[in-house]
Amino acid sequence: MNGAESLVRTMVKGGVDVCFTNPGTSEMHFVAALDKVDGMNCFLCLFEGVASGAADGYARMTGTPASTLLHLGPGLGNAVANLHNAKKANSPMVNIIGEHATYHVEYDAPLTADIEGIAGPVSHWVKTSPDAKSIAADGALAIAAANQPPGQIASLILPANTAWDDADAVADTPAAPGRAKVDEKAVENAVSVLKSGAPTLLMMTGQSLYEYGLNLAGRIASTTGAKLMAQGSNQRLQRGAGIVPLNRVPYPVPQALDVLSPYEHIILIGAKPPIAFFAYPNQPSELHPEGCQIHRLAELDEDMIDALERVADAVGAKEGSAATQEAFKPEMPSGALDPDTIAAVLGNLMPEGAIIADESVTTGRGFYPLTAGAPPHDWLNNMGGSIGLGMPLATGASVACPDRKVICLEGDGSGMYTLQALWTQARYDLDVTTIVFANRAYRILQGELANVGAENPGRKALDMLDLGRPDLDWVKMANGMGVEATKVTDCEGFAKALTAGLASTSPYLIEVVL
Amino acid sequence: MNGAESLVRTMVKGGVDVCFTNPGTSEMHFVAALDKVDGMNCFLCLFEGVASGAADGYARMTGTPASTLLHLGPGLGNAVANLHNAKKANSPMVNIIGEHATYHVEYDAPLTADIEGIAGPVSHWVKTSPDAKSIAADGALAIAAANQPPGQIASLILPANTAWDDADAVADTPAAPGRAKVDEKAVENAVSVLKSGAPTLLMMTGQSLYEYGLNLAGRIASTTGAKLMAQGSNQRLQRGAGIVPLNRVPYPVPQALDVLSPYEHIILIGAKPPIAFFAYPNQPSELHPEGCQIHRLAELDEDMIDALERVADAVGAKEGSAATQEAFKPEMPSGALDPDTIAAVLGNLMPEGAIIADESVTTGRGFYPLTAGAPPHDWLNNMGGSIGLGMPLATGASVACPDRKVICLEGDGSGMYTLQALWTQARYDLDVTTIVFANRAYRILQGELANVGAENPGRKALDMLDLGRPDLDWVKMANGMGVEATKVTDCEGFAKALTAGLASTSPYLIEVVL
Repeated sequence: MNGAESLVRTMVKGGVDVCFTNPGTSEMHFVAALDKVDGMNCFLCLFEGVASGAADGYARMTGTPASTLLHLGPGLGNAVANLHNAKKANSPMVNIIGEHATYHVEYDAPLTADIEGIAGPVSHWVKTSPDAKSIAADGALAIAAANQPPGQIASLILPANTAWDDADAVADTPAAPGRAKVDEKAVENAVSVLKSGAPTLLMMTGQSLYEYGLNLAGRIASTTGAKLMAQGSNQRLQRGAGIVPLNRVPYPVPQALDVLSPYEHIILIGAKPPIAFFAYPNQPSELHPEGCQIHRLAELDEDMIDALERVADAVGAKEGSAATQEAFKPEMPSGALDPDTIAAVLGNLMPEGAIIADESVTTGRGFYPLTAGAPPHDWLNNMGGSIGLGMPLATGASVACPDRKVICLEGDGSGMYTLQALWTQARYDLDVTTIVFANRAYRILQGELANVGAENPGRKALDMLDLGRPDLDWVKMANGMGVEATKVTDCEGFAKALTAGLASTSPYLIEVVL
Repeated sequence: MNGAESLVRTMVKGGVDVCFTNPGTSEMHFVAALDKVDGMNCFLCLFEGVASGAADGYARMTGTPASTLLHLGPGLGNAVANLHNAKKANSPMVNIIGEHATYHVEYDAPLTADIEGIAGPVSHWVKTSPDAKSIAADGALAIAAANQPPGQIASLILPANTAWDDADAVADTPAAPGRAKVDEKAVENAVSVLKSGAPTLLMMTGQSLYEYGLNLAGRIASTTGAKLMAQGSNQRLQRGAGIVPLNRVPYPVPQALDVLSPYEHIILIGAKPPIAFFAYPNQPSELHPEGCQIHRLAELDEDMIDALERVADAVGAKEGSAATQEAFKPEMPSGALDPDTIAAVLGNLMPEGAIIADESVTTGRGFYPLTAGAPPHDWLNNMGGSIGLGMPLATGASVACPDRKVICLEGDGSGMYTLQALWTQARYDLDVTTIVFANRAYRILQGELANVGAENPGRKALDMLDLGRPDLDWVKMANGMGVEATKVTDCEGFAKALTAGLASTSPYLIEVVL
């Protein structure tokens, strides 16, 4: 057995049995080892940002890490943006990054780079294996690091000779550790705030946004009068008919200030204090009203569910007392497409168990209300703000949940960063319906130009925010990667296309021309 | 004047008047400043790897830096692979990277990242500006760093408030420094080796590969019996009819060992000692024969031309004595397409002054002989080994030389990393003909799997190297980004399509199905 095989066997044994790959020469022994080891499932990606985004999507839906296989420093570089997003989402992930043979590094060959340096800013754990006999143990350490609550990015660098030299061991990975219980003082403090009757908000994220956590929070809210809100973006939020509903902090600072203005207390459940996505001249970075007190019930890596149970008990929030979402379908609209009519079509047609990979940016800001009463579904956001996550995230979510429909809501500007994901969806016949909102602009930036106080922009500036001239044709691009696609320009066309996409179990793309 | 405007004015005054942009919110004031300052020419890219690769291409053809505009850590991350390539090519470049306002960083907003950490491994110079009044001076420092011979990557990080706060100065950039002359001892040593009559190779790269340097080397060679060879990959190599010809070190290790085996001395002119691109089991990293002595005439940042002139004088190498390439056109082939017939079509049709952006990988290994006698042209290689440079490099070269024809030789696997470059070519109507070699595989890796000794690969491994199922359709993808395209399957079709592409002054793509 060589080092590569000992690593692949260790990974499979440790529960990491999916690999999103974009290999090169230095990873050839790892690729060869895939054949020799049963149980590792590989998905080829034609760009590394697809691999890292897909691993993120997989982790969100399974709670366990997928791996990526990346080619030296530059291959890792291509994965950086979606590793950043995954790190901010605390999605567990194991990156296997090839490196030159240890004795070859000194020659500064073309691909030689500071791999640890590139990995550092986007990883929680980084290690270069020194030799073949260490790889299995290092692989187990990497998996353990990834499994550390709330989930971490582990990057293991694999010099080529550590893959091809002889090894003899398969290492055992320790079981993923449980989450620490929160301190009794934090519970007591939250209970005292909640019992005070002062206007209080529970600001939630992480595992608290799964159905059971939401129900606990809903019971607390209905008993104490507190309100619920989720962070602006979240790793995975369960919602729909029968689930306790909640809104997210809006992206525009004035709106966020407005919705947060009533509260004297904010209790954080895994969440951070609400802050602005960007700073703007003459607007605050902190979004809570002056004088509002911030309390921390549970950190992101702590056992939020246990904490909510303890609080619910202490305030006497009974089972069954939570206000859950009623089922409703918006009426099917007709005529012109705009964010509201798009939301109505979506809300009307969304199937049970859908997974929504949301990178709809400006177009999707208003999608929440009209999809709230759809059958139960999961909603995945971009937590790192680096656009180009949507289609890879959808790809990985579909690999994780082949029996569920994945709907990817994608801006045209955002989609262009990682459009190669469509090919991976085609090769593995993934059940993903992608809706591209073709406003032919970095629309969000047209607003931001004004928000930052850059007045009266001229042609040269506006040209940098405009994706027209020429218009992108998403139908042709999708077809070029083997994905069936159609273009729609009104509600009737969109409803028909979405019906077709949802009925298909193969990838399907709808270009919604706005 | 705000900080952004003071920076843009400093850049234009310092000779950096081209910007390949992919901006976001934190760069909006920089974008707004573009309107207020005459002389800055902006080119929008839909992915940051296109911007960094285009800046590389621009620098290679002008010798001066272009700038990029990138959005925080993840935007920089997307540029990393082609920044790596540009760093290895020592192409001068000024990256302007937006950052959160200085006072906003502490809140760890979604896009917050260790930007300096990401920039470090792919930059020679990194600085974060502390305030608006420092930006102009920092911009001048960045340009000066980029201009430092042989060319450097300078990354200037621009917190948003340093762009919008008041500034008052435009800074002067010092003139680019000249190259240091090489030590007399290095010249004397080279002369003594050359006069010894022992088999000697001049291993060349950098500025020595422009026509005048090649002519000097050719004079030395014809006078002393020394041979000439270029590094395996080079920033820019001038060749064709009337120019002193030379081959490059081959990529496959056995071939490289073979062509280098005759030499007892290798004299380096800007070049590194020849080394293998990758290490392979039981093959050496160093490619020179045992006992061969390596001599350094000039470092990459030194004045190679002056050094060659001094050597030429010392060995009595007269003007006019160099053996230059005779003009020849290969006969136009017919029938099946293979690397040789493709080379013949190319060699037959290449126009004078063509700029070849070569990322043809396996298909193009044999292109050199049949294009050697074409009219004078420039040949640009990938020096960092990270595929995905070809189409961005061609884009930047065309911006630099709008009156010349750029021909991009691109592998299908490589092209997929940065296909968004085609849209930029369409928007700015760039005169680039792209030839995609569609072998529908990472063909190079199919060979490498065997080269590293991974024997009898099975289906799972081979699937990771195969780009079929589904086949990529480059015509549809190019059309989807506004680029005219055609698919060819034989020599006649290729000749007709290439003739059409070369006759057009707009971007044009030919998918060569192999």
